[in-house]
Amino acid sequence: MTDAVYLDHNATTPLSSEVVEAMLPYLTTHFGNPSSSHALGRKAKDAVERAREEVAAAIGARSSEIVFTSGGTEANNLAIRGALEALGGRGAPRIVTSVIEHPATARPVELLERHGFEVVRLGVDASGAVREDDAEEALAEPTSLVTVMHSNNETGVLQPIEALARMGKRCGALVHTDAAQSLGKVEIDVRALGVDLLSIAGHKLYAPKGVGALFVRDGVSVAPVLLGAGHERGIRPGTENVASIVGLGRACAIAARDVATVGPRLRGLSDRLWVLLAQRVPELMVNGDPLERLPNTLSVRFPRVSGNALLEACPGVLASTGSACHEGHDVASSVILAMGVEREEALGTVRLTLGRGTTEEEVDRAAEELASAWERLSEGR
Amino acid sequence: MTDAVYLDHNATTPLSSEVVEAMLPYLTTHFGNPSSSHALGRKAKDAVERAREEVAAAIGARSSEIVFTSGGTEANNLAIRGALEALGGRGAPRIVTSVIEHPATARPVELLERHGFEVVRLGVDASGAVREDDAEEALAEPTSLVTVMHSNNETGVLQPIEALARMGKRCGALVHTDAAQSLGKVEIDVRALGVDLLSIAGHKLYAPKGVGALFVRDGVSVAPVLLGAGHERGIRPGTENVASIVGLGRACAIAARDVATVGPRLRGLSDRLWVLLAQRVPELMVNGDPLERLPNTLSVRFPRVSGNALLEACPGVLASTGSACHEGHDVASSVILAMGVEREEALGTVRLTLGRGTTEEEVDRAAEELASAWERLSEGR
Repeated sequence: MTDAVYLDHNATTPLSSEVVEAMLPYLTTHFGNPSSSHALGRKAKDAVERAREEVAAAIGARSSEIVFTSGGTEANNLAIRGALEALGGRGAPRIVTSVIEHPATARPVELLERHGFEVVRLGVDASGAVREDDAEEALAEPTSLVTVMHSNNETGVLQPIEALARMGKRCGALVHTDAAQSLGKVEIDVRALGVDLLSIAGHKLYAPKGVGALFVRDGVSVAPVLLGAGHERGIRPGTENVASIVGLGRACAIAARDVATVGPRLRGLSDRLWVLLAQRVPELMVNGDPLERLPNTLSVRFPRVSGNALLEACPGVLASTGSACHEGHDVASSVILAMGVEREEALGTVRLTLGRGTTEEEVDRAAEELASAWERLSEGR
Repeated sequence: MTDAVYLDHNATTPLSSEVVEAMLPYLTTHFGNPSSSHALGRKAKDAVERAREEVAAAIGARSSEIVFTSGGTEANNLAIRGALEALGGRGAPRIVTSVIEHPATARPVELLERHGFEVVRLGVDASGAVREDDAEEALAEPTSLVTVMHSNNETGVLQPIEALARMGKRCGALVHTDAAQSLGKVEIDVRALGVDLLSIAGHKLYAPKGVGALFVRDGVSVAPVLLGAGHERGIRPGTENVASIVGLGRACAIAARDVATVGPRLRGLSDRLWVLLAQRVPELMVNGDPLERLPNTLSVRFPRVSGNALLEACPGVLASTGSACHEGHDVASSVILAMGVEREEALGTVRLTLGRGTTEEEVDRAAEELASAWERLSEGR
C-alpha cells in the first residue's frame, strides 16, 4: 500500500528533521529553566536568545523585537488586545480589519467591538484580496489598529499589507499582520512591509505546535494578555518553552535560507497539480487570484460535488475543504463566499496545500486520485 | 570532572525518558492537526484524548473536566479570570487568596482587584501555612473565588486546601488551587480536596515546558482568556500542542503510578540531606513546617551568609535561593518574610529540591559541597 499524499500543509506541517534534531538536546540534557541563574539555567537562556536572533533575522527584525508565545492564536491576541490596552484609551477607538480573518484575529476584534471600538471590516474582491480603495476610504479616519492577515489560510491569496501599512501610518494606526501562513513560502521583511506587529506560528513552518512569536516593533508598547511573572520583558509570563522555541528558531533560519528556492519549487508543483486536475475536470475553478497567492496553496472548486464527499471518496489524498479549525460541518466557507462565489458552488471547494517535502510523483498521484474520485461521484449522480 | 548535582526540581524537572519516547512519534510521523478530519488528523486527536484521560485519571477527575493549556501560568489565568468572567457579575465581588501565591495567581487577582473585586490575602503562620482561623473569618462573607496554592514552590509547605474548600463551599465560592508543585510528589484527588479548579504544569512533572492543564469540575463554567477558534470546547483556542500534551499525559500516568513509592523515597533523601547539613552547619534552620511539606523540598537558612553567595561558591550544586521566576536580584523572598523570618536571616535561604532521579550519592555530595562552601565563607568573614 502506498502512503496517502499529504496536501494539508496549511493545517499543519510535519516537523523538519533539522528542527527535531535541534530540539532534542533541550528535551533531554539541557533541561534547565532559563530563569535559573545556575549553569543549566544559563544554557537554556542562551538557547532561547539564539532562537530569538534566528526568528528576528528571518523577518528583518532585531531580536529585541521578538516575543515568544504559545502559538499564532496567542500572538494575535497579544498583538490586538495587548497593543490597544497599552494605548490606554489614547488613540481613536476604531479598528480596521477584513472579513476573511482567522478566528484568532476575528474573536479578539469582536471583544474590542463589545468594549466600544468601532470595527470596519474590509471586504474582498473576486480575487480574494482586500480592496485597496475600500481601505483608502476606511483609513481616511483616525484609527488605532489595522489588522489584516498577510495571506489567507484558505485561498492563499496575498493581501496588500504594504499598502495598508502606508495608509495605516497616515491615520495614526498601529498595523498588525498575521503572517502564520506566509513565512517560509514568500519573503517576509517587517521593514519593507512597514508593519508594527507580525504574528508567526511554529506549526505552519515545520516547527512544533504550541509555539509562536510576535514581532513588536521597537518603540511599540504591548500590554501582557496572560498575567504572571516577568518573562519576555514582562509581555508574556510563564516558563519559556525552550525546546520548542529552539525548534522555531531553527525553522525560521531554514525558512529564510531556503525561501528563494522553496517558493518557486512549490509554485511549479502547485501549477502542475492545477494543470493535471483541470485536464480531467472540466469547469474546475481556482478560488482567488491564480498568481497573487502563496506558492503552495491551490484552493479549487470541483463542479457538482461537495468537497467533503470528494475527499471521503479519495482516502489517498489528505486535504481539507476549508480551514481545519472550522471542520466538522458541511457549511460553505465564509472566506469563499466573501469572494462572491455562490453557496452551492462554494461547497465544492477542496484546499490542496503543498509542502517542502511534496514530490512531483505525489502531485501526479494526488491529481489522478482526485480526478478519478470526482469522475466516479459525477457519474453516480 | 563529576557532574554538578541538580537540586532545583521545583524550578523545572528533566523530562522522563518515558515521556520523551511517548512524544517522539508526534514530533515525527504523527504530525497531523487534531482539527483535520482525515486519518492524520484523527490520529492526533485520538492521542490528545488519550492524554486527557491520563491527566484526568491522575487526579481523580473525568476526562471531560480537563482543558489543556500552554502551562501553569495560563491554567491559573484561565481558572481565576475565566471562572469569574463566566459568572458574569453574579456572585459577590470578593476573592480570598494568600500572601504566598506565585505571580501567575497573584497578578490575575490584582487585575480583578483593579476591576473592583475586594481581595482578602490570608497570611501564613511561622510554619508557612495559611492559618485556618483566618480563613474561617475571611470566608464568613459571600465570596466568588478562593484561590490558594496546593503547596508553596519555595518552602514546599502544604496548604490546608480541603479545609479551605469546605469553607469556600459554605460561602458560595468556587475553589481553585495551583497544584503545579504537588502533582507526582503527593497524592492529588480533586474530589477528596473538594476543589472546582486545579492547575497543572508539565515541566514541574517530568513533562516538557510549554504545556499544562486545568481541571474544571463538570458544571463549572469558564470563559476563555485567549480568544480564537473553538478548540478545547471553546475554552482554549489554538491548535493543540499534540506532542507535549501526549508527554503531559504520560507524565501524569507515571506520577499516579509511582507517587506512593516516589514520595517516601524523596522524603527519605531530603531528610538525609537535612541531617548531613545540620551536622556541619550549626544554627541551620528549615523554612516552614518540617513535616507538612512536599517530600522533595528542603528550604533552609544558612547562618551569616547570603544564599546567592553560597551557591556561587558551590558550583557543584545547582539550586536556587527562591523561586526561579524572581531570580536576578538579591532581595529576600516575600514568602520567607511572610513566615516572620527576619530579612537578614531570610537572605541566607537556599532551596534544595530533589527529583525522581536524585541518588543518595548525590545527596551526600551536595551536603559535603554546601557545607564546605559555607565553612569557607564563614571563616572568610
